[in-house]
Amino acid sequence: MLDPRGKATEQALTRLGFEGVKEVRQGKVLELNLTESNPERARTALENMCKKLLANTVIEDYSIELDG
Amino acid sequence: MLDPRGKATEQALTRLGFEGVKEVRQGKVLELNLTESNPERARTALENMCKKLLANTVIEDYSIELDG
Repeated sequence: MLDPRGKATEQALTRLGFEGVKEVRQGKVLELNLTESNPERARTALENMCKKLLANTVIEDYSIELDG
Repeated sequence: MLDPRGKATEQALTRLGFEGVKEVRQGKVLELNLTESNPERARTALENMCKKLLANTVIEDYSIELDG
């Protein structure tokens, strides 16, 4: 995917004199604390949240990780 | 740390009808591909990049992970 923020950061690092930066990719992370403790139901809810609000699926990929 | 973006996302999810969202924290992730293969030198370079450009240390925490 195109990543104009990552590209801009890459160029800024090079301008600041940092050498050896081949590529920068920039993304966001969301940590959600949910009351749902069932993993399948939690994953389904998170998928819906990503599709409806959290991810702009036209320009962003997303993945979901459950923890604890 | 205060996290106004996370808080806004949390409220938006609740408004959209998603129940059981206790807290949302929002952050960014940067993946850098470096030519440096020595882990200590890579970590030192990344620390400097964070301090000089990548992290706004007044309002953001950061951590560094090396991979491969």
